[in-house]
Amino acid sequence: MGSLDSNPASFDAFAADAEGFQPLNADDVRSYLHKSVDFIYDYYKSVESMPVLPGVEPGYLSRLLQSAPPNASAPFDIAMKELREAVVPGMTHWASPNFFAFFPATNSAAAIAGELIASAMNTVGFTWQANPAATEMEVLALDWLAQLLRLPGSFMNRTSAGRGTGGGVILGTTSEAMLVTLVAARDAALRRSGSNGVAGITRLTVYAADQTHSTFFKACRLAGFDPANIRSIPTGPETDYALDPAKLLEVMQADVDAGLVPTYICATVGTTSSNAVDPVGDVADAAAPFKAWVHVDAAYAGSACICPEFRHHLNGVERVDSISMSPHKWLMTCLDCTCLWVRDTHRLTGSLETNPEYLKNDASDSGTVTDLKDMQVGVGRRFRGLKLWMVMRTYGATRLQEHIRSDVAMAKMFEESVRADDRFEVVVPRNFALVCFRIKPHAAMSEEATEAANRELMERLNRTGKAYLAHTVVGGKFVLRFAVGSSLQEERHVRSAWELIRKKTTEIMSGEVSV
Amino acid sequence: MGSLDSNPASFDAFAADAEGFQPLNADDVRSYLHKSVDFIYDYYKSVESMPVLPGVEPGYLSRLLQSAPPNASAPFDIAMKELREAVVPGMTHWASPNFFAFFPATNSAAAIAGELIASAMNTVGFTWQANPAATEMEVLALDWLAQLLRLPGSFMNRTSAGRGTGGGVILGTTSEAMLVTLVAARDAALRRSGSNGVAGITRLTVYAADQTHSTFFKACRLAGFDPANIRSIPTGPETDYALDPAKLLEVMQADVDAGLVPTYICATVGTTSSNAVDPVGDVADAAAPFKAWVHVDAAYAGSACICPEFRHHLNGVERVDSISMSPHKWLMTCLDCTCLWVRDTHRLTGSLETNPEYLKNDASDSGTVTDLKDMQVGVGRRFRGLKLWMVMRTYGATRLQEHIRSDVAMAKMFEESVRADDRFEVVVPRNFALVCFRIKPHAAMSEEATEAANRELMERLNRTGKAYLAHTVVGGKFVLRFAVGSSLQEERHVRSAWELIRKKTTEIMSGEVSV
Repeated sequence: MGSLDSNPASFDAFAADAEGFQPLNADDVRSYLHKSVDFIYDYYKSVESMPVLPGVEPGYLSRLLQSAPPNASAPFDIAMKELREAVVPGMTHWASPNFFAFFPATNSAAAIAGELIASAMNTVGFTWQANPAATEMEVLALDWLAQLLRLPGSFMNRTSAGRGTGGGVILGTTSEAMLVTLVAARDAALRRSGSNGVAGITRLTVYAADQTHSTFFKACRLAGFDPANIRSIPTGPETDYALDPAKLLEVMQADVDAGLVPTYICATVGTTSSNAVDPVGDVADAAAPFKAWVHVDAAYAGSACICPEFRHHLNGVERVDSISMSPHKWLMTCLDCTCLWVRDTHRLTGSLETNPEYLKNDASDSGTVTDLKDMQVGVGRRFRGLKLWMVMRTYGATRLQEHIRSDVAMAKMFEESVRADDRFEVVVPRNFALVCFRIKPHAAMSEEATEAANRELMERLNRTGKAYLAHTVVGGKFVLRFAVGSSLQEERHVRSAWELIRKKTTEIMSGEVSV
Repeated sequence: MGSLDSNPASFDAFAADAEGFQPLNADDVRSYLHKSVDFIYDYYKSVESMPVLPGVEPGYLSRLLQSAPPNASAPFDIAMKELREAVVPGMTHWASPNFFAFFPATNSAAAIAGELIASAMNTVGFTWQANPAATEMEVLALDWLAQLLRLPGSFMNRTSAGRGTGGGVILGTTSEAMLVTLVAARDAALRRSGSNGVAGITRLTVYAADQTHSTFFKACRLAGFDPANIRSIPTGPETDYALDPAKLLEVMQADVDAGLVPTYICATVGTTSSNAVDPVGDVADAAAPFKAWVHVDAAYAGSACICPEFRHHLNGVERVDSISMSPHKWLMTCLDCTCLWVRDTHRLTGSLETNPEYLKNDASDSGTVTDLKDMQVGVGRRFRGLKLWMVMRTYGATRLQEHIRSDVAMAKMFEESVRADDRFEVVVPRNFALVCFRIKPHAAMSEEATEAANRELMERLNRTGKAYLAHTVVGGKFVLRFAVGSSLQEERHVRSAWELIRKKTTEIMSGEVSV
């Protein structure tokens, strides 16, 4: 693509140019970004020594910064100074190697660079024509990742056999992936149950294990499903808190017998609480007789499935309707980046398509291109594929697998340490890089006292600023979640955290007062 | 916040550290980002000379890049090389000063820097505790912008009188702002109409002018409203294509008489097609007797309302329930950044709240903090407030107003040029920085021939690569949209585009074949 001649400058109707405010002056952009890069460099070098969880009180920032917007402009250094002095001290440092809470938000140099470039080019790729490269890059990145995950060709945009019926889109959150597929499934179920408009919605039912992320139940409510028709299937230790397909089948059959219409099942690969894995293939088989849509939420653990030794967790995925996973969790791609693949894109676009006059164009009319606005909630969208492609292009499958394996190895070592100390127990089997453990009830210790001891341990740990752990409740037990994998983390951080846990536990058990 | 001592290094249970793959190695991060900044500098310097709209064919990128992900890692330079050689030539350059299509995605050095820093810190601020600084920064940025827009205190998180019932959240798109408020309005209407579960949803009705963005009608469908109950109120030249509150009232009353429940009205300030402005206060007054939720979509033109001379377009906003506008459109903040304010946050959180065990914490339990996950579709969220705050902090109200006024002045000059050439007509009055014009039908020219001439003009212009314009249809007329404001744009670019339009029009009128 060659460059063009300059446009002609003659234009008598207008006054001469005045040198005005230039928000994208290239020298300013370079200067601001160099300052930002210096900040980031210093931040990564020093974040290890900052308290992971800040000790600020609600409203702290409004006491440090002015409550009204300034009238006058200010050097960029002022914003940077306030960032350093007011913002950073109030942050929970997800980038800290001492962060073990929730799931890590993994990141990489290539991802940050990709996002930066996307922000600067700042295109809005709602249709193919609005940015062909962004659309095609997103499609390519999703096809690459589908190959890393060994997803069946039916989920890919292009295979060696040409363009199929499947495809994907990058969204902001798993919740959006759930919402758009729920809506497609809802509309299909309304059609096949002969509903007049949405009247039949009161008969549609949805299903998920009780360990499924709460956002699934919220997405169901957003899409208009009746709260009374949202089935939360109980799980227990006998399945390590995974969905029991026999129970699912039983509940669905009872609903059908009551005149209801099973519409959607969400199976999770790596639950948030304890990393339980619902049996994907068995769930698909249970759903098949009812024509219910099966979605797999592999937000966190999906990334691990790029390693052959973890891929079995997706067995049966060729029989589900959609799958989503979030490289912003465990594939070193900064927020936000959730990948959704569907086996039949027309089922999705049938519910999500819009076609306003001002977006009409020959490419869309030709039917040969993907308009990604028709696979998401909104219209506007960033150049979402670039950073994900840069991660895969730069690190390659080998480095990505190495990254997963290194995290899992650290988690395994932590798990072994827990098992080697008889004051503790690992509460559920570790599947990936999350260890769910607790101080074990001993002798005369009640379940309440055990919970109190573990709560006290978590609070004491978090107050040190040297580690941040979150908790959950599994099978009625209050459990500490130790999530390995923050991108600056090394074995020594895991070791230090374990030493700190032991020390604080000793203090608690010997009745020492927290300091 | 002082720094902490290093963690103790003794940990006998683990093997010694192995030097492995370091995805966030600070030197790599600096190096990749410096290369990216150089790319951006060059891009801004050269984008003017690139064709705005690329001439690529569907599937072009997959013919240039490998179809399978690489196994081995590669120097970052490889990704940058492919970016330059394969991606850039296939891009529609929204950053080009010759981009006049859709609405501009305005941007600034401060915004890009803010987004970069947010990407590097990569926090996930679903609850206050998960990143107090990010939550408080977002709240502060929204309160600042509310003040710039002179929104009533009832929409602010904190006023001089303390914490109120109002507040805001930054979302990805206007569509999401519509969706979450639609869901809150839907649930309120179901409750007040005594619905058993969602059964009453078939009686709920929603309203908007026929000029309202198609994404509103899509958001209604996502939220489960019956397509038959979505009212598109016709507009005409007598109101410059704005919503007529008398017609709205009539339609709502007819629905009530038919036993239906008016639930939600979307008023637009600055429609996508032609920048029509629905009368906000009159719409609120029409809705009041029915207790319907009124939302104002000011995605594009809201930014102009930071100037006193445009603020009257929001008159009556104190009587609506919610308002959204997108700084990623016209307030120099790169994608994505849509601000939503609601007068009563509890009406929103009542429908969107989730409270899973693993996110429970003392701050949330205290009720003194905002957990932003409860005002959006998803759970995860970037550090969304930083770039918006940096824009306001660095440029101040004065520069921001100057930016709006400069764009409007350029649009006004373009409009005057169009009016001064009797081959053209301005089809609707210009309200902001969008000019809707066309080659005027003359003498024996039919409406079809006029449309054909204008289509031909648009296509010839876009094929030159020296300008990119989009079209719309207003009142049955095919109209060219000339949207001023791309952040690198200067008067000379507007002048050149106008010269090009004149030249191509002369060619078309003299029957010259397109080259």
